[in-house]
Amino acid sequence: MRVLVLGGDGYLGWPTAVHLSDRGHTVAVADNFARRGYDHELGVDSLVPIEPLVVRVRAWAELSGQRIESFSGDITDAAFTRELLQGFRPEAVVHFAEQRSAPYSMIDQAHAVYTQRNNVVGTLNLLYAIAETDRDIHLVKLGTMGEYGTPNIDIEEGWLTVEHNGRSDRMLYPKRPGSFYHLSKVHDSHNIEFACRIWGLRATDLNQGIVYGQQIPATEADPRLATRLDYDAIFGTVLNRFVVQAVLGHPLTVYGSGGQTRGLIDIRDTVECIRLACENPAAAGEFRVFNQMTEAMSVEEIAKTIAECYPGPAEIEYLDNPRVELDTHYYNVVHTGLVGLGLAPHRLCDTLITSLFATVEQHRHRVDLAAMRPTVSWRATNSS
Amino acid sequence: MRVLVLGGDGYLGWPTAVHLSDRGHTVAVADNFARRGYDHELGVDSLVPIEPLVVRVRAWAELSGQRIESFSGDITDAAFTRELLQGFRPEAVVHFAEQRSAPYSMIDQAHAVYTQRNNVVGTLNLLYAIAETDRDIHLVKLGTMGEYGTPNIDIEEGWLTVEHNGRSDRMLYPKRPGSFYHLSKVHDSHNIEFACRIWGLRATDLNQGIVYGQQIPATEADPRLATRLDYDAIFGTVLNRFVVQAVLGHPLTVYGSGGQTRGLIDIRDTVECIRLACENPAAAGEFRVFNQMTEAMSVEEIAKTIAECYPGPAEIEYLDNPRVELDTHYYNVVHTGLVGLGLAPHRLCDTLITSLFATVEQHRHRVDLAAMRPTVSWRATNSS
Repeated sequence: MRVLVLGGDGYLGWPTAVHLSDRGHTVAVADNFARRGYDHELGVDSLVPIEPLVVRVRAWAELSGQRIESFSGDITDAAFTRELLQGFRPEAVVHFAEQRSAPYSMIDQAHAVYTQRNNVVGTLNLLYAIAETDRDIHLVKLGTMGEYGTPNIDIEEGWLTVEHNGRSDRMLYPKRPGSFYHLSKVHDSHNIEFACRIWGLRATDLNQGIVYGQQIPATEADPRLATRLDYDAIFGTVLNRFVVQAVLGHPLTVYGSGGQTRGLIDIRDTVECIRLACENPAAAGEFRVFNQMTEAMSVEEIAKTIAECYPGPAEIEYLDNPRVELDTHYYNVVHTGLVGLGLAPHRLCDTLITSLFATVEQHRHRVDLAAMRPTVSWRATNSS
Repeated sequence: MRVLVLGGDGYLGWPTAVHLSDRGHTVAVADNFARRGYDHELGVDSLVPIEPLVVRVRAWAELSGQRIESFSGDITDAAFTRELLQGFRPEAVVHFAEQRSAPYSMIDQAHAVYTQRNNVVGTLNLLYAIAETDRDIHLVKLGTMGEYGTPNIDIEEGWLTVEHNGRSDRMLYPKRPGSFYHLSKVHDSHNIEFACRIWGLRATDLNQGIVYGQQIPATEADPRLATRLDYDAIFGTVLNRFVVQAVLGHPLTVYGSGGQTRGLIDIRDTVECIRLACENPAAAGEFRVFNQMTEAMSVEEIAKTIAECYPGPAEIEYLDNPRVELDTHYYNVVHTGLVGLGLAPHRLCDTLITSLFATVEQHRHRVDLAAMRPTVSWRATNSS
């Protein structure tokens, strides 16, 4: 099928495009290269060196014989978005084209506003472009498990049957997220559900856990196909940071007591989930939600798993938490939708041992220690 | 107390400012005059003639001896917003400064994006300005009953205790609104609740029903103090449109079967609710929600009430509904919070008879019939 990957130059967008192409789909990518710009702004860089998009696309064509068409533009530009859809005529649009860092959104007022405006307006433009181009185009939207926050009840897949005063309704699952970034995704989900309702659009909202790993089978063959690996305090996930710390022989720095429980997923499972979602579209008018995670672990458990799996000594250190979040809480997540479509999950420890430690070891000379220190506080407004 | 009214030149912002000043508070207003701009864009006008803000403020000073300070600016401009708060140093900010029409937000992509960007960014800037100026400033934010949609369970005041699989949590009430405008208010509410959580802000979210009426006691004395009365298909509420139709001897045009039930409130009760909210602030860190309505009626019941109260013949006509909404549905709303603070509600029929019919009669020569026809469809994307 014809799949357009928005944000196709990013950490997950690029491997998704390659994976879909590898599995026989006709793929195009679009990107405004904002993610590369954040590196310049923050003075950080991917641990694994990455090539420009044109080089990646050329390398993939050489290796596979498959062409991934690429477009340069910004989906907050409504005309670009409309022309992109009307030109490529996708059957599915995979939407990664958002600012995706919670700490980045919490830097100050300007970054909070940028994040919400960028993400909400881009998604609105995309909804209009789909409605105006072909209402059968399936929108596969990347959300995050962080949208839910940490409720004291089970986290269902996007919808919840609520019983109240002897009556009942199937309602959108009430969300209470922990950053202006996560809030932007909650806003998106509400807007998308409405578009499904009024225009009959098909949408799948993938509430993704923390993704780890850097390689998928199709990108392993050539370093020009590598995707980025972020370990800095703004764009790096906690898991990648721990792996870098273990490899460097530094203590693994846990915020608070580390009791915060999070959903996790291997990058190879992420790209599979997206393929499965594309190949099994939501019904017309359906706002379908999957919780795209395969394991739940506390931050302390993640640290301990990495310390145990690492073939060398590794210590854990506890720091003050710069975020406002519960240190210990209930966390039980339903995530059966994607397994029902055929997902066969990888497990953290295996991935660490088979590839992630080696990848980090290979590039350890590129680590900038200063970039790993947390600088953004949730409590302050950080204005100068 | 010192109260800053944002959107203080608008339909409700202006009477709120006058009412608060009349009741002894030190009031300032700010406005970017966007609402007057929409009139120019759409070629419509308030049924009741209104004076420029400077004339209104001067007239109020003449009549009352009270000065209402006025500021011209846009809260989507972060520097303006911060300087406004740091200059006036309010104890409460009443926030009406949003695009408030559902049909306007549904005109096309550009109007949807404008509405969400304007409303969400303005409110975000305000949250940052409060956090940076004084975290004790009480934010009184105008929301709408339309945020809830029409759930099949009782509508509580903003929060809902959810029982699920033997566990329980107090969660934000799940909302499923019916326009990109209403969605912008849902986004605002999520952002505000988060700001209360991380910065300890005090906020009251007033989910307001359809407001009717044009006069409050303090503005009756002088026509220069009059607030606007909208009856057009974009900014007019269904109730005002019915009253105009009754006075003109035209049929009252109900969309669909008229089974859609809505909350209502008299403009005199609205300004009282805001005074009560200001004088009884939310606690530090509290996101307090009131459902600001006093009666629930179906659209057909509103039409019938107006037809019965009108001292002359009045017919009802049923038209196709341009919106996507349920025609008949459960609707039971808890609205005890404001009554608990001392609100003594007016009733629709009394207000109609004592003032609204006469106001419309006085200005009937200003009615533009073309402006009353619905032109915005929820199903189309309305691109040219």
